[in-house]
Amino acid sequence: MSETIGIHRLMIEGREQYIECSGNQTLLQALIHGGIFLEANCGGRGTCGKCKVQVLEGQVAGAGRAEAKPKPGTNDTYLACQVYPQGDVVLRLPQSKVSAKGSITEILPDDGPSILRKIVLTPEYPTVNTHYSMQEMVKRVCPNSNVLKEKGVLRQLAAAVDASPDCLTATLFDDEIIAVEAGNTVNALFGAAFDIGTTTVVGMLVDINERKIVAVCSETNPQAAYGADVISRIQAAVDMPGGLEAQSQVIRQCLNRIINELCNVSGVSPDHIYAATIAGNSTMSHLLLGISPAALVRKPYAPVFKDVAPFCPEDIGLGINKCGKIIILPNIASFIGSDTTAAVLAIDQNLLSTPMILVDLGTNGEMVLSDGNKLYACSTAAGPAFEGSHIRDGMRATAGAISHVTITDDVRIEVIGNVKPAGICGSGMVMAVAELVKAGIIGPTGRFNKASALPPNLGQRLKQAGNQWEFVLAEGKDSATGADISVTQADIRQIQLVKSSICTGIQFLLEQTRSVSQFDVCLAGAFGNYIDIDSALTIGMFPDFSRENIRSVGNAAGAGAVHALLSAEKLRRCSRIANDVEYLELAAQPSFQNKFLGNLSFPGVIR
Amino acid sequence: MSETIGIHRLMIEGREQYIECSGNQTLLQALIHGGIFLEANCGGRGTCGKCKVQVLEGQVAGAGRAEAKPKPGTNDTYLACQVYPQGDVVLRLPQSKVSAKGSITEILPDDGPSILRKIVLTPEYPTVNTHYSMQEMVKRVCPNSNVLKEKGVLRQLAAAVDASPDCLTATLFDDEIIAVEAGNTVNALFGAAFDIGTTTVVGMLVDINERKIVAVCSETNPQAAYGADVISRIQAAVDMPGGLEAQSQVIRQCLNRIINELCNVSGVSPDHIYAATIAGNSTMSHLLLGISPAALVRKPYAPVFKDVAPFCPEDIGLGINKCGKIIILPNIASFIGSDTTAAVLAIDQNLLSTPMILVDLGTNGEMVLSDGNKLYACSTAAGPAFEGSHIRDGMRATAGAISHVTITDDVRIEVIGNVKPAGICGSGMVMAVAELVKAGIIGPTGRFNKASALPPNLGQRLKQAGNQWEFVLAEGKDSATGADISVTQADIRQIQLVKSSICTGIQFLLEQTRSVSQFDVCLAGAFGNYIDIDSALTIGMFPDFSRENIRSVGNAAGAGAVHALLSAEKLRRCSRIANDVEYLELAAQPSFQNKFLGNLSFPGVIR
Repeated sequence: MSETIGIHRLMIEGREQYIECSGNQTLLQALIHGGIFLEANCGGRGTCGKCKVQVLEGQVAGAGRAEAKPKPGTNDTYLACQVYPQGDVVLRLPQSKVSAKGSITEILPDDGPSILRKIVLTPEYPTVNTHYSMQEMVKRVCPNSNVLKEKGVLRQLAAAVDASPDCLTATLFDDEIIAVEAGNTVNALFGAAFDIGTTTVVGMLVDINERKIVAVCSETNPQAAYGADVISRIQAAVDMPGGLEAQSQVIRQCLNRIINELCNVSGVSPDHIYAATIAGNSTMSHLLLGISPAALVRKPYAPVFKDVAPFCPEDIGLGINKCGKIIILPNIASFIGSDTTAAVLAIDQNLLSTPMILVDLGTNGEMVLSDGNKLYACSTAAGPAFEGSHIRDGMRATAGAISHVTITDDVRIEVIGNVKPAGICGSGMVMAVAELVKAGIIGPTGRFNKASALPPNLGQRLKQAGNQWEFVLAEGKDSATGADISVTQADIRQIQLVKSSICTGIQFLLEQTRSVSQFDVCLAGAFGNYIDIDSALTIGMFPDFSRENIRSVGNAAGAGAVHALLSAEKLRRCSRIANDVEYLELAAQPSFQNKFLGNLSFPGVIR
Repeated sequence: MSETIGIHRLMIEGREQYIECSGNQTLLQALIHGGIFLEANCGGRGTCGKCKVQVLEGQVAGAGRAEAKPKPGTNDTYLACQVYPQGDVVLRLPQSKVSAKGSITEILPDDGPSILRKIVLTPEYPTVNTHYSMQEMVKRVCPNSNVLKEKGVLRQLAAAVDASPDCLTATLFDDEIIAVEAGNTVNALFGAAFDIGTTTVVGMLVDINERKIVAVCSETNPQAAYGADVISRIQAAVDMPGGLEAQSQVIRQCLNRIINELCNVSGVSPDHIYAATIAGNSTMSHLLLGISPAALVRKPYAPVFKDVAPFCPEDIGLGINKCGKIIILPNIASFIGSDTTAAVLAIDQNLLSTPMILVDLGTNGEMVLSDGNKLYACSTAAGPAFEGSHIRDGMRATAGAISHVTITDDVRIEVIGNVKPAGICGSGMVMAVAELVKAGIIGPTGRFNKASALPPNLGQRLKQAGNQWEFVLAEGKDSATGADISVTQADIRQIQLVKSSICTGIQFLLEQTRSVSQFDVCLAGAFGNYIDIDSALTIGMFPDFSRENIRSVGNAAGAGAVHALLSAEKLRRCSRIANDVEYLELAAQPSFQNKFLGNLSFPGVIR
């Protein structure tokens, strides 16, 4: 290892700046350190194969350790986590960064005033005989506020009185004056709402006065470099030296990049963003705050906190108005976070007062049941399978992903972007498995039937590769990778595990309220929104619900974070939701294992 | 100016580290930037002559500007504010840094429990069925606290539970848990109390459990480099680019040096200091917080704030426990600061309920009168004269200062440190003027009598130097400087201005309560403690009080800051004092000018 320790430059195709890499850093470590995101679901262990980069110029080599040999992909492609530069290198990165943005003008419903407001003040200065302080003057002209005692705002007050003695604008957060500005700035009042998903981070810029979302921007969660699911990230935080701080830092940087993009798109100054609401699962909020998530995965699986007081942007280095407030919405339990709280908040109150089930499927699956009076919730580690990890040819729902599969006498596929297929996305996988079940290619236990029992067009697609069978959706000659794109026996097992855990969770919730039988089912979350509901019913992801009662409700967590910004009453309701929900720990239910095993099989095609 | 701009090193005799100085920085600017204090009462204008340094090796030169020529002192001595290094330079600095420290074990009176306390917690962890959070667990075992919602403390809680699952220690500030530590640390509970004087900064380390001051340390206020009095410092903050931030920074650095020394002397870890109380005049608290003090000197002379909420040490970079609280005690008015609030707090409640006058004489003079029911206060810009500026041969009360003067048929002086005299300190000056009055050398108007009318031994000491008369206390042949040490006619005028303003202020206070005639008079403050009371009465500094009712009460402001740390009840009383005091703005009193002029003369020697 000692011969090549020096500083090398990593040039990246399409970027002007280079990144420095010392000879004892892997390419992955250097790229992350340089703020560039690469998926690495296994946390850099060299096992997931996701962090491929193409070396266009220069040399890389594996370290001396046996397991760390460079793994050449097609052509000059390497796993960035396994190779070290031997000099300056030019890289091509995969197009993995998802970023959607745009100006949106939808006006949101009015649920009462926001916790944020601005008031124009006309100062009434003291005389030499009354000699009250500027602080007391503000209280006189803004009597519904608490006396301004925060030193940062006092500093602003001193400067604003100098710059604009006749007109000031106060920004209030509840009854507290959090900012004082020179002149009348009452029209510039914005908030940011974030949904920090395990996989995707979404930010929305909200005009509080106009009740409008003015920009949306999303980015892949850069913590993916430490693992695809929350368990891997918790392990990285606990076991890797500096792993907690590093994950805290990359998500903070990500939020700042999103804030910058939101401001660029909308032309809004970051100084006019006075509050941010943040929804995310409990692991995300622990990591964001740099609070060890170790207790989440250690019996009795307790979070360190559910609720944290609003705090200063500077405390986590967030680039909004310095005197603003960061509000982490309250978590419900270790594995039911504030994203669920926000999702419940976003659902219409009328709907909540009728029997209803919310199924939020992202990287994790959270289920909340309302029997009209009380809320019950449970969670399962649903999701990485949906997002492509643990699935051999799995990939995100981006260009090249098979998103629709129909099997009759032959197989028809649809590919996102109308290009050659490169893999299968989560919703495509569910549909593929449902079609395999309906076509009788796999039986109720999930095993492939014999090829000889199938029509020839289908039977010839069943192949044995390595030590397992697979069903080929697209042959190598037709694919972008040159290799077959298939559903393997192991992939089907993964889908069975996920769908069974979701179904079993919902059954436990239903047991809490035997008196009700008819439920509205709302599907939310990155996966819940795109799933083909018929296919989900076919594979038995849900108990025996009627198709017409099930609907997708969009990114409910993100919507809830926006609602909390816009309505003080809804923001307060968050705490009530988090306190009132009765949480069921599935692992603590004696009958869980049996029910779970019972739900692994496919219910059959006749519904 | 352009020929010598480079980086030079300033080596300082007796120090191992050097300071860098660019060729366009004066020595004074470079020394301040390097954290070294030099007195510069005029703020670097080259007029006060206080910032002398001796150049042992190397060359310095004045800048091109006409008024900035090097002013050679004796030998190779220069004004640091007027010269620029021409290469590396070795300097000898004056011994101006005052630092007293020691271990003190006096046990302070018990006025009820402190706002700070520590409680040992025995965790009761959740089960998989109860699944409450660690935050809720703490509330269960520490029921008298608010739910812990501060992210910094939650971070500590996560780490402490990992390190010491069976025993934790919580530190409470009022009902708020501000720190959680592993194990039982209940014996390590300290606070720091500061009195930030315009001239001297005093810090005391207090053992809260034992009610003991365990160390004291003081340092000259490094803001003196920006001017001797608050007016000069406010001007520097308003007019100099970066002057506010620079003065804020140097006082913060000073507080940190004091904290380090307190911890070094006592062996206490800075992490075990959980709160700091800070008393100081309004200008000091504005500058410390980086809040513009411009309004203090602009009609109607309003402070930006009187009261500021307790805040985090990190906010001003103070090196105590990160989760601790900084409490700036409340100010009363623009020129009656929290040092007066603290001084009133330190005075025994029984005393306050009888007619009493507190006269706090430091760089400013503040007077508070209690008529047994109500408090009245006023202030005067008393003091720089007491501390040596505006007095030709004035100096601090350090080695070489004439501290006592007796005039009978000849003059007898006492010099601090029993060395050759180098100047006169404030209390020596008051005594000298009183003796000159008693001996008839100056008349009631303050003018020197004719030498011919005096006994020869005294008459020969009256000399005309330049365009004014002076009375020589020590001749050049006997002095450390080689020049005469004298009381000049201008010096006497300075003393007259100061004593008249104090006397007039007290008279205005007395007018508020004509029903009472007998008062206890408490003298406090850096100067109030050392003044010779008989001399002060002789020159008419106080109205016609009886000698036996006047006494010195020590550093009342510092004592008050300690009391506020030790007693929550006394800390709360501070806000009541600040709100209840009726402030008299002397400048707004129509009869002030007349009374002030009437009090300029000396009352005569027969009392």
